[in-house]
Amino acid sequence: MLGFGYAGKVYPVNPRESEILGFKTYPRVGDIPEPIDFASITVPAPAVPDIVEECLAKGIKAVQVLTAGFREISEEGEKLEEQLTGIAAKGIRIIGPNCFGVYSPVGGLTILPGENFPKESGPVACISQSGGIAARIPRRASGWGIRFSKVISYGNACDINECDLVEYLYHDPETKVITGYLEGVKDGPRFFKLLQEVSKTKPVILWKGGLTQGGARAVYSHTGSLGGEEAVWDALFQQSGAIRVNSLEELIDTTLAFLYLPPYRGRKVSVVGGGGAISVAAADACERMGLSVPLFPTELQQKLASIVPPVGSGTRNPVDVGGPMPPPAMLKAVMETVLTDGDVDTIIVDEIEMSMSGHGMKRFGRDHGELAQVPVDVKKRFGKPVVMVMPVEAIGADAIEFEGARRNVCDYYLGEGIPVFLTLERAARALSNLVGYYEHRDAISSPG
Amino acid sequence: MLGFGYAGKVYPVNPRESEILGFKTYPRVGDIPEPIDFASITVPAPAVPDIVEECLAKGIKAVQVLTAGFREISEEGEKLEEQLTGIAAKGIRIIGPNCFGVYSPVGGLTILPGENFPKESGPVACISQSGGIAARIPRRASGWGIRFSKVISYGNACDINECDLVEYLYHDPETKVITGYLEGVKDGPRFFKLLQEVSKTKPVILWKGGLTQGGARAVYSHTGSLGGEEAVWDALFQQSGAIRVNSLEELIDTTLAFLYLPPYRGRKVSVVGGGGAISVAAADACERMGLSVPLFPTELQQKLASIVPPVGSGTRNPVDVGGPMPPPAMLKAVMETVLTDGDVDTIIVDEIEMSMSGHGMKRFGRDHGELAQVPVDVKKRFGKPVVMVMPVEAIGADAIEFEGARRNVCDYYLGEGIPVFLTLERAARALSNLVGYYEHRDAISSPG
Repeated sequence: MLGFGYAGKVYPVNPRESEILGFKTYPRVGDIPEPIDFASITVPAPAVPDIVEECLAKGIKAVQVLTAGFREISEEGEKLEEQLTGIAAKGIRIIGPNCFGVYSPVGGLTILPGENFPKESGPVACISQSGGIAARIPRRASGWGIRFSKVISYGNACDINECDLVEYLYHDPETKVITGYLEGVKDGPRFFKLLQEVSKTKPVILWKGGLTQGGARAVYSHTGSLGGEEAVWDALFQQSGAIRVNSLEELIDTTLAFLYLPPYRGRKVSVVGGGGAISVAAADACERMGLSVPLFPTELQQKLASIVPPVGSGTRNPVDVGGPMPPPAMLKAVMETVLTDGDVDTIIVDEIEMSMSGHGMKRFGRDHGELAQVPVDVKKRFGKPVVMVMPVEAIGADAIEFEGARRNVCDYYLGEGIPVFLTLERAARALSNLVGYYEHRDAISSPG
Repeated sequence: MLGFGYAGKVYPVNPRESEILGFKTYPRVGDIPEPIDFASITVPAPAVPDIVEECLAKGIKAVQVLTAGFREISEEGEKLEEQLTGIAAKGIRIIGPNCFGVYSPVGGLTILPGENFPKESGPVACISQSGGIAARIPRRASGWGIRFSKVISYGNACDINECDLVEYLYHDPETKVITGYLEGVKDGPRFFKLLQEVSKTKPVILWKGGLTQGGARAVYSHTGSLGGEEAVWDALFQQSGAIRVNSLEELIDTTLAFLYLPPYRGRKVSVVGGGGAISVAAADACERMGLSVPLFPTELQQKLASIVPPVGSGTRNPVDVGGPMPPPAMLKAVMETVLTDGDVDTIIVDEIEMSMSGHGMKRFGRDHGELAQVPVDVKKRFGKPVVMVMPVEAIGADAIEFEGARRNVCDYYLGEGIPVFLTLERAARALSNLVGYYEHRDAISSPG
């Protein structure tokens, strides 16, 4: 907390020390002379219930219990956890146990391993039954420029559970997109109704772990939750409007789509790439993810044919500009022609080697070549969704400079409000998740 | 060719120059005074047939035609291509047209954009109808330490086709694993029989592009091939023993599994990771890919419980060592106990932060910490398949140093014969492809 920069008062409580990190330390919670807003509890599990009782007596409204060793490990632990639930009912709210707590840049709080989390706030909230995921999502997402309003690692959910948190975030003006990693749900019907309601105005992107046999077993070891049946969860996602994702990567990709793309519905995309097989793979990936890559009308094909090279190219959609480093004017003319004459909702620029482009550019620096600027200019002019796919081509340790250059160009696009994905498949999946959400919203709000 | 270091004699042919790059240049092929082994043809499409005729007259046995503008663009092009097929029948073999040609480190040849390809040869062959893919596979794969015997970009396949190439590689002693990117097949029944035969001794890993409507259309623009029906290709893969992959990533991952893992059959894996949700996700991913993560017997769970932390851990399989940076001795004891007492075929070390490990290690250097060495030591002692999963956690341009450190540790494992994958999902898919291949081999060789 101190490392993160918490600006409020801190009162360490410990029966054996009189000073910790320069702070006067109190033997018991009740000894603190001033009123307290929030307590973070890390004593061993058997001592937790008494401490929470003391917090209640002190008038503290909420605590987080980071300690593990409750329901997830033994029957004794389960009994201890039931005690906590009982104490909570008397008038104190508990997050945890077996969690990493709360990250809130505005409040100056951070989760247990979150000392170096971003200080700036953002529009994305995350609730996670897993502490590890609550730590990894903001770390990875911050590389994509994503910032968070609140991240809550809530562990075994002895009191405050996923429903309470989603409800809170639904009303939180700072939060525009709600994400979550769940292992189990305490009250299925309430959760379902809540998701139906929240999804009308805020997207809820959920990763449900433990839907296989081995996964369910691991869930039980982890947070003492029951994994649930896949069919039940399928129905929940289909009917509630919540967005289902199946991995950390998909959760972040989908969040990126919601942050960087406007609310829109259409599934028709044009892919502009530099290579025949890239076009084939792109069309396959889009159509497998439920997007369509419509055949362009002959007239539009002819216009495009006058721009791209006469051989080694393609104009039917996907558009193949012939190679991964086309002249900037060619890429620009292709994109403009597609957006002017093509009946598409999104344009995906696929695997054009932006970081290598422009022989005059400072090769590994932050000076982006003329080619790299084309999608930015086109997006500004047309206002239509532009999506970039920029795979990591240079894998080896000896190619780290190339990877640095690629990342600089990614940052440039993100800074210009253009989402970047690592593969076409991942871009298509995220787009499909985005569009599916708005389609569902339309469907439930239409009178029939 | 010269940049790559071709050591044989080179005879440029050009009617307008007398010298090119310091080489005496001949107006026509027939003017070259010595016998010629191989010709690479890059003249415009309408001139190609006459040139190939001249090569035939000169006694050249084989040519590659890099020129595009044949079957894939027009009926005229199709007629030109049929002329080439006719000339080939008279006694000269043609690779292409519309291709990047042949990369053969032993022969000193490389494909059109392959000047900087590795000079060393290796056990993997690749055939690709796409020039772009023929260029990308060796580039990306080389970052994983994969080296190639031959890469053949064969484009429209007017003469030499996928069957000829697979048959050749089947008999090529340098080639142990055959990979390929296909858009269409000239002779389906022959190809099917050939794959059945080859798969008995060499794995054939194939990515078939163009199985969706949009993909098929792109295939036709690209190499003038007919994409084929998905059901037909499903059957071909199921019955021939060839290994189906659906992306460049999966092709390389699967190749990595074949190169770095022994031939084996079992689908039982133990996952050892540092975090509860990581274990849940790992179990879900393994079981979705057809692997099993068996529940450990009570006795083994108890042994593991005496090694891992008492809380915040898991012993049922997956094994959760409690955090992403366990003490080296703990990871070692867990791995050894699992391999001694656990009835598993593979152990996957999942998302342990090896590159951050060992506070004494040179942080971004090549001096690997004690923790990073554990999987190497254990693999040496037990000889069982060990697989590493090391995701890219640090995405941003400002975190490129961390990524460099991660790649150094990856290289260390690859150097020690341990495969590394970027996600558990990708590792599980590659493992499943590997094991499925050997299962098929067993099934067809068993008398029933």
